[in-house]
Amino acid sequence: MKSIVTIGGGTGQFTLLTGLKKYPVKLTAVVSMADDGGSTGVLRDELGVLPPGDVRQCLVAISEADTIVRELFNYRFEAGGLKGHNFGNIFLSALEKITGNFDEAVRVAGMVLATRGTVIPVTTQDTRLVSGRGDVCINGQYAIETAELPKDPELHLDPEVYANPKAVEAIDAADCIVIGPGNFYCSILPNLLVKGVAESIKRAKGKVVYNCNLMTKKGHTDGFSVDDFIAGIERYIGKGRVDFVTCNSVTPEQELLDRYAAEGEFPVQPLASAVRDGRAYLAADLMSRSIPVLKAGDPIKRTLIRHDADVLASLIVQNCLGGL
Amino acid sequence: MKSIVTIGGGTGQFTLLTGLKKYPVKLTAVVSMADDGGSTGVLRDELGVLPPGDVRQCLVAISEADTIVRELFNYRFEAGGLKGHNFGNIFLSALEKITGNFDEAVRVAGMVLATRGTVIPVTTQDTRLVSGRGDVCINGQYAIETAELPKDPELHLDPEVYANPKAVEAIDAADCIVIGPGNFYCSILPNLLVKGVAESIKRAKGKVVYNCNLMTKKGHTDGFSVDDFIAGIERYIGKGRVDFVTCNSVTPEQELLDRYAAEGEFPVQPLASAVRDGRAYLAADLMSRSIPVLKAGDPIKRTLIRHDADVLASLIVQNCLGGL
Repeated sequence: MKSIVTIGGGTGQFTLLTGLKKYPVKLTAVVSMADDGGSTGVLRDELGVLPPGDVRQCLVAISEADTIVRELFNYRFEAGGLKGHNFGNIFLSALEKITGNFDEAVRVAGMVLATRGTVIPVTTQDTRLVSGRGDVCINGQYAIETAELPKDPELHLDPEVYANPKAVEAIDAADCIVIGPGNFYCSILPNLLVKGVAESIKRAKGKVVYNCNLMTKKGHTDGFSVDDFIAGIERYIGKGRVDFVTCNSVTPEQELLDRYAAEGEFPVQPLASAVRDGRAYLAADLMSRSIPVLKAGDPIKRTLIRHDADVLASLIVQNCLGGL
Repeated sequence: MKSIVTIGGGTGQFTLLTGLKKYPVKLTAVVSMADDGGSTGVLRDELGVLPPGDVRQCLVAISEADTIVRELFNYRFEAGGLKGHNFGNIFLSALEKITGNFDEAVRVAGMVLATRGTVIPVTTQDTRLVSGRGDVCINGQYAIETAELPKDPELHLDPEVYANPKAVEAIDAADCIVIGPGNFYCSILPNLLVKGVAESIKRAKGKVVYNCNLMTKKGHTDGFSVDDFIAGIERYIGKGRVDFVTCNSVTPEQELLDRYAAEGEFPVQPLASAVRDGRAYLAADLMSRSIPVLKAGDPIKRTLIRHDADVLASLIVQNCLGGL
């Protein structure tokens, strides 16, 4: 069976995994550990645990448990002392406190959720995302998420942390390494900043796929083209390392565009499929037509222009794996 | 397969179920829903849910899931906004919020915990235990637990609630109905106060076993003999309805007795096995010799003189089922 390793975090990786889990492939999700906002941030601060939020989303994405169990893991309390807390986050944090081992907590949660595949925290060391140095630095992913960043921001993790050996092992053995989609500086790059991850992608034999975002993000990726995103990734994993790029071939409808423009967000310029600079650009209508469900108490505004999980997964499986 | 229905709540029922689950019997635990203290009380008040605590203990008792999953359900947070909350309680409350149905929440939790048997909340209507009427009443199980009660206290549920039909069905079909051990006025009788429960025990064909407590409780059952406990039960289910009584045949060691005496608690007078008043008194050395683990943050002091789960279960199975 062919093996796919996905690298990312947040809603983007949730969508990707939701699509990929339908194929007979060995699926491993390597997940960012830089989140420090919302329920995750409170649990980190109060209990001294590692960030559960992104891991939880991935576990739910590849879960084959009853709908009700998956719903439970995403449930957010709306009142009292638990208000704002996500049940799955509490679950992972309690397990980490009991076992003293986040990896083991993720394993047990995967068992309860009957996951088809494996979720691996990119590191099991505690760290925070930082943009810049000294007086002008911005501390923490949550703060960075809403900040106006300089072009090509200097991002690093403080303290420096090492890759989870299981993540390196999975990347080394993968037929296909899929990066993104997701919040570029807050969910994707924090994985590549972990010592040992970019290095293992560089040396790995598997093909590298980059799923380009559909929209730019204000203060982060303003005016980015598909190639700007690729350059941002290859700055870490080596020029020319991305073998395939999936990108959008269509322009979203005007009403949606207007809503996003009001927030300073614009579509990444659509492309046609092509082979260029030694890599294949796989262009398709990637936009989801389903109506997203907004969750009460959700601390981060969700995009309404999103990838269609099935189209994205099919594009990758048909083109980048060399057959199943 | 013979069927046993247990009726109770708290640590007593946990112990009983831990012993009984080792036998090839159809096991159903009917559980008190009057708890309103500790983590359970906070969740009831803040989220408007039914009390999860007693149900959770029973689920864990008959769980055949990994040790780590059982440990997780009993885990109590020790810091931050979650401090004092029990994970299993949070689990059941989240499920109740999602499904709007406590019965369904218990079913899903039972699935996750891989229970060997069924746990049934005695009622799925919201109610509180009250002692007395008017000016002298004491409201709520937690308040009653620490109060000095009059002899033969007038206990009732406010509002009056009806039995879960599944509980009645299980009692009607049982070969053996086992009541107690447990906090007499706070965990055992609240089950018999639910409309339809005592009536179904009265008419059921199964034998009734009462597991008498080892110790009296100050302000509640001072000076009670085994027969006083039985009379307290039969006041609800009908005189002569108890077919078997398990009771202690030995006196606890002096050091333990001294410690309990300081709290106003004394051993129920030991008996020898006998047949009397149409019922069998099954006397045995029922005392657990294992050292109990006290849990940090545990709001209710646990007894150190406790039933031995295996001896108790064996006594019941060998004598009251008429063979397996």
